[in-house]
Parts: sequence; C-alpha cells; structure tokens
Amino acid sequence: MYDLDGLLQKTKIASVKLNDVKEEEINAVLIEISELLIENANSLKEANKIDLELARQKGQTAGYIDRLTLSDKVISSMAEGVKQVSELSSPVGKTVYSYKNEFQGILVEKKNVPFGVIGIIYESRPNVTVDTFALCFKTRNAVVLKGGSDSINSNKAIVKIIKQALINKNIDQEVVNLIEDTSRETATAFMKKDKFVDLLIPRGSASLIKATMENSTIPVIQTGSGNCHVYVDEFADIDKAVNIIFNAKTQRYSVCNACESLVIHSKILEKALPLIAKKLWEKDVEIRCDERAFKVIDGLGRVAKATDEDFYTEYGDAIISVKTVDSLSEAISHINEHSTTHSESIVTENQENAKEFMQKIDSSSVYHNASTRFSDGFVFGLGAEIGISTQKLHARGPMGLEGLVTTKYFVTGDGAIRK
Amino acid sequence: MYDLDGLLQKTKIASVKLNDVKEEEINAVLIEISELLIENANSLKEANKIDLELARQKGQTAGYIDRLTLSDKVISSMAEGVKQVSELSSPVGKTVYSYKNEFQGILVEKKNVPFGVIGIIYESRPNVTVDTFALCFKTRNAVVLKGGSDSINSNKAIVKIIKQALINKNIDQEVVNLIEDTSRETATAFMKKDKFVDLLIPRGSASLIKATMENSTIPVIQTGSGNCHVYVDEFADIDKAVNIIFNAKTQRYSVCNACESLVIHSKILEKALPLIAKKLWEKDVEIRCDERAFKVIDGLGRVAKATDEDFYTEYGDAIISVKTVDSLSEAISHINEHSTTHSESIVTENQENAKEFMQKIDSSSVYHNASTRFSDGFVFGLGAEIGISTQKLHARGPMGLEGLVTTKYFVTGDGAIRK
Repeated sequence: MYDLDGLLQKTKIASVKLNDVKEEEINAVLIEISELLIENANSLKEANKIDLELARQKGQTAGYIDRLTLSDKVISSMAEGVKQVSELSSPVGKTVYSYKNEFQGILVEKKNVPFGVIGIIYESRPNVTVDTFALCFKTRNAVVLKGGSDSINSNKAIVKIIKQALINKNIDQEVVNLIEDTSRETATAFMKKDKFVDLLIPRGSASLIKATMENSTIPVIQTGSGNCHVYVDEFADIDKAVNIIFNAKTQRYSVCNACESLVIHSKILEKALPLIAKKLWEKDVEIRCDERAFKVIDGLGRVAKATDEDFYTEYGDAIISVKTVDSLSEAISHINEHSTTHSESIVTENQENAKEFMQKIDSSSVYHNASTRFSDGFVFGLGAEIGISTQKLHARGPMGLEGLVTTKYFVTGDGAIRK
Repeated sequence: MYDLDGLLQKTKIASVKLNDVKEEEINAVLIEISELLIENANSLKEANKIDLELARQKGQTAGYIDRLTLSDKVISSMAEGVKQVSELSSPVGKTVYSYKNEFQGILVEKKNVPFGVIGIIYESRPNVTVDTFALCFKTRNAVVLKGGSDSINSNKAIVKIIKQALINKNIDQEVVNLIEDTSRETATAFMKKDKFVDLLIPRGSASLIKATMENSTIPVIQTGSGNCHVYVDEFADIDKAVNIIFNAKTQRYSVCNACESLVIHSKILEKALPLIAKKLWEKDVEIRCDERAFKVIDGLGRVAKATDEDFYTEYGDAIISVKTVDSLSEAISHINEHSTTHSESIVTENQENAKEFMQKIDSSSVYHNASTRFSDGFVFGLGAEIGISTQKLHARGPMGLEGLVTTKYFVTGDGAIRK
C-alpha cells in the first residue's frame, strides 16, 4: 500500500518552513535547478528513453510521443524557463490593504501569503514538472506532483535534480514530492486529501480537469477549455473581421484561446461571410454553417451544415462553426449559452455595441476588435502563466503568480481589547 | 412540483440587466427599501406573528424565537442597515490591473465585475433577508434567497417590500427571488444549480455550512466556525494576557471570534494562569485544563480536566480549554492542528516570537497582543461584512463588498491580431 499520507504530511511540515526562507535563497535554488538541468541532460534523456520506449510499445500517437520527449532543446528551454521565474518579482508579503483603527487601538494589515501545499495533477508532459514547481516555489508554496504514468521515469529524474538543488542550497528537500504510484486509485485518493493540500490545480485535457472538479474535496482552480467566439457586428469593419477571424482560428489550432465559432449579424452576412470564408479556405478550414450562412457560401469552398452539437464543440482543429443572428442581444444570448466562458470578441466600429457586448458577455476575457488568441499570461504582462482560469472564484482569466497566493490579516495591538 | 429552474432562470436573465443600472439608481432602491420597511412595519409584524405562533407550537427555544422576531426595533435596525449600505462605495467597475502591450497593439484592463447571481442559504432569521439582499444588490448581483422554513411568512413579506421598491424605481423586480418551497429536497436541488447560480453563501450554523459544502456544485464561500486560540508566550506581559483573554472569552460567548482555548508556555504557567483564572472566574467561566495546568489551579475555582475532544471544541459558552506547551513551535503545531483557521493571537513582548507565530499560524486573521474579538468587517474598516471566510480561495477573513465581486479582463485593439 502506497503511503500517500506519509508523503503529504512530510510536505505539509516542510511547507511551513518556507516562511523563513529569504527571496535570494528562493532565487538561488531556481538558478541552481536551471544549471543542474543542463549538467544532467544526459541522465534526463536516459530516463526519458525508458518512458518513450514503453509509450511506443503502447502505441501512443506521434503527438503524444512528441510531448513526452525530453530533447536537448526541451531541456534547455526548461532550464531557461526556471531561470526566468527567478527574475520575476514575488507577490508574497505585499500588503494589499491596511487600516488603523484608532478607536480600538489596532493596526490591520492584509498581506499576500502562500497557500501552503499546492497539488498539481497533469498528463505525461515532463516539462510541466519543472515549470509548475518553479512557479509554486517562487511563491513559497510546497508542491506535490502527480504526473501521467507514461512519464514516471522522466519525472523521477527531474524531481531528483530539483531535490539536489534544494539540498545544495540548504532548503528542506521535502518542499517538493512526486507521487510515484501512478495508479488511478492513488490519484483519486490524492484529490481527497484536503487535510494536507491547500489548493489543487489540474493542468491538461478537459477530461482531466472534469475528473478533478468532480472528485476533489480540495479547492480546485479550473483552467481550461475554450469554445471561443468572435462576433461580427452589423457595424463591423470587414477587413478587421477577416484578419481577426483568420488569426484567431488558424494561428494555432490546438490552443484553448483559438476561435471555434463565428457569430455574424444577418445584415452583414452576405457581404462579410464570403470574404471571411475565402481567407479561411487559404488554410483549408471547414466552415460548418447554420441554414442562413450555408446559403451564402454553399458551393464556394469547404462548407458543411452545422448541427446543434457543433455550437458546443471546441474543435481544436481546422473547423469553425457559423451562427447567424438578427441582433446584438441575440448574439450575447447565444454566446453566453454556448461558450466555456474563456475568451470572446466583438468586431464593430460602434462603441456602444462594443461596450454592451463586453459588459454582458460572461467570460473571463472579452475583446473589442482584437483576436481571442491574446488570452495569455505573458501577452497580458503577468510575466508567467499558471493557466487560464474559467471560474469566477479567486482567479479569473490568465493567471500569473498572484493566483498562487492567498491573503492573511495581520493585526497588532499593545494589549488591545475590543470595546 | 416546485418550479425552481423557472425561478432561477428569471433571476439569471434579470442579473444581466444590472450591468446597465447606474450607481444612483442602485442607491435609490436601497433608500426606498429602507423607507418602505418603516412604512410597512405593521404588515411585517403581522406576517411575522404567524411564523412566531407556529414556531412556539413547535416548541422552539426562547433564543430561537428571539432571532425570529421582527420587533419595531429590529425593523428600524434593518432599515438603517440598508441605508448604510447605500452610502458605501461600490467596488464594481474599478480597474485593478492594466497593461498596454505596444508590440501586440492591445490595452488589457482587469476590472471588478459582479458575479451574476448569488444564492444565500440561511436559517430562520428574517433580518438576514434584507441585509444580504442589500450587499449583493449594491455590488450589482441578483440574489436568490433560501431562508429557514420557520421564517417563510416573514421572508415573503420582506421580499414583497424589496420588489415594491424595485418596481417603484423601475428596476426589474426579478433581480431578487425567494425560494418559497422550504423543503430540504428543494434546498439540496438548489445547491446543484451551477447553471444558474454563480456563487453560494451559507450564513448560519456550522451544520448548515457543512451541508452546503458537501452538497453544492456551485462555488461556495465557507464562512464560519471559530475555535480561536490565545497563546501566552513565555515573554508575555501578564497584565496584557489577563485582559486579552478575559475580553476574548467573555465579551460575548456565542460569537465565532471568541477565544475557546488558552495555550500557555510552561515557563509562565505557574505565574500567569492563577491570575488569568481569577479574572475568568469573575464571570464564572469553567476552565478545562490539561494535566500540568490542572495542578496549578485545582481547588481555586471552577476547574475541570480537559479531554482530547475539548481541544477541538468551539464552546460558544462560558468554558475555556487550557493547553500547556514547552516551546513556541509546540504552540504553533498545536494550534494549526486544532484551530478552525479563524483567528489566533499571541501575547508576548518578544518581537521575533510574535513574527514567527503570525507567519506560521495558518489562520485567516493572526494577532499580536490583541483580542481575537476584533475579527469583524466593520472593525477592520471594510464598511460591511458578508461573513468571515475561513477558506483560502477568493476571500479570507472578514469579507466586505470586495468578496462579492469577481474580475474580468477587458481587452481592446483596433483590428489587433496576435503576432
């Protein structure tokens, strides 16, 4: 029987000690990890080779194998990433509110503090191991990692390097631990350990996130899936619409901020849709249309009829659905009903319509005359990205280091008693 | 069959319209409610009378009846409370982060926005109906109320007044709705309606909060129970310790920020405990001691031996437990193990010890030389209090209007596409 509780308890105890560690020491560990990753590239590749062979025997796809592979390039990018985290400024300790209650004789200060222990559940992508450790450790959280079973040997090798860096810099190496039992039972048990873990972040596919949301008793930050819409208003500049949709749909198909559905006003449909379609067909995108849109571009290129299901689908592929509406309010209702509340954009020259759209669309990021592809922690100037939260509690939208801290009220008096 | 979905859908649709309402209009409604409560005091008391008679027939306790009663005094205090909320400044619309990405040609602004629909589950305390409506409405959220079954007639009368005020001021009266079916089945069904409700706040007993946490699929803010500790360090000023513990334990017994347990350093035990005990006995407090503390004050007053259970108990009564420790770190471990992470205080003249205690105690409010009784939204200068959150996500500690808003990224460009 795997001693999960023992592992978590050790991590919890170690997490408290991170309060005493100085910022320079945190950064020194991150730089040490960066250097050790490069120095130990060969042993990492050896461990990774075992994972790769087993994955190939299992018949995993080429894309899967690619994400599992630790090449020299991936390793140096991991090393560079950790180093960059060391250069960020930490939100920990920052006073976010203060109030002196003269009558009661107390000073109230609300400060950013670490969560304590953060659990990360992810798939067989060993680069996530270093990346999430760095962000959590930078914010003085201890970390428990549960990676995909196909990457277990790679993850063990990486965590060994992280622990060596901690030892070299005199920090308790129990601030990071990998759950080496990769069974589903242990994963589910992990999600129930709210006694030891303060926050759980699933990173990966929609199904992984869904399973975590359903099973976890630990608070979860839901990151994730994006059925993103671009609405072309009756007052749209058609050139802007064409360029924005082409960028949002085709720049990268598999990302969560790609556009999956075009919503278009009936008054501009006949003029704009053929131009938008023509551009999308440059990359052979399949356009799945409702009845009205279908009539406009049928026979001109790769067109199909959309089903109801299409409007709920995040394709992650060279496919886009098209919905025709007769008003701004119909567009808003349609989008709020079908979106995953990730990122939605309006293309219009009418400021009032833009304002109404942005206010009433219930998504974490709303855009005016811009591509949904911008939803990203780095593009938004956060310096890092843990994920893109589609929930409303705590963190919403692209989430930087601030998402990994909570707050605490520090109250000081000199024998103060409540009057 | 009660049409819960119909009710929630109407509220959800109305919630979107609150985005268009001006701040003056919000405040005008609150003032109108305040006036209508006073004008309709007699009809409120009539409705309340029905509830009171049924509750008496059921044999409810005097304290329960007291909390259920709408006297003239309670009604005018409700009216005053709503008026005060109208005078607060609203966090909605405030820009909390902005970033101009020149390279990509976009302006990113993160602003406070309402959650949408907030559900409130509470016990048979009709004053909560007005209070929570006012705070949620001030932050432009629509509200669905589910009060205790014994207060149903009072709640109907209050919600009728709120709706009248909304009608008088031309705001959609569906922004507030009361679930009139008070069955447990409907309450449980309500907790699963994450399609319509964005945030659920249980207000009341520990058992109500526990049931909500266990059943809800809607994000919940856990407010609540307080097993609060005062730690008397070896370097404590004993006068301060005596006064702080007396205040924290006896000022009000039933409140969540009252002290339930005294943790005391062995080096100061014999000198300090008799003085602390003597003061507590002025109010006939029962002192439940561990072995070492028991020996020091046995025979001097109302003393008993503590069981393990005592250290996990929030008495809400004239009882306190005493735990002796040999070090600061033992005190910290004991408190982190037994507290409900509400409010904990250290009494000491040693700044280093105070700093370590405040850093390592994992509670929402930590104190140095001050009573735990200060944990309160008004005392902390927040102008309001929704509750005291003991969770780490979103809101932690006393929670003002800021706890009722989330954020949204507003991104504007002029045909911006991601490079």
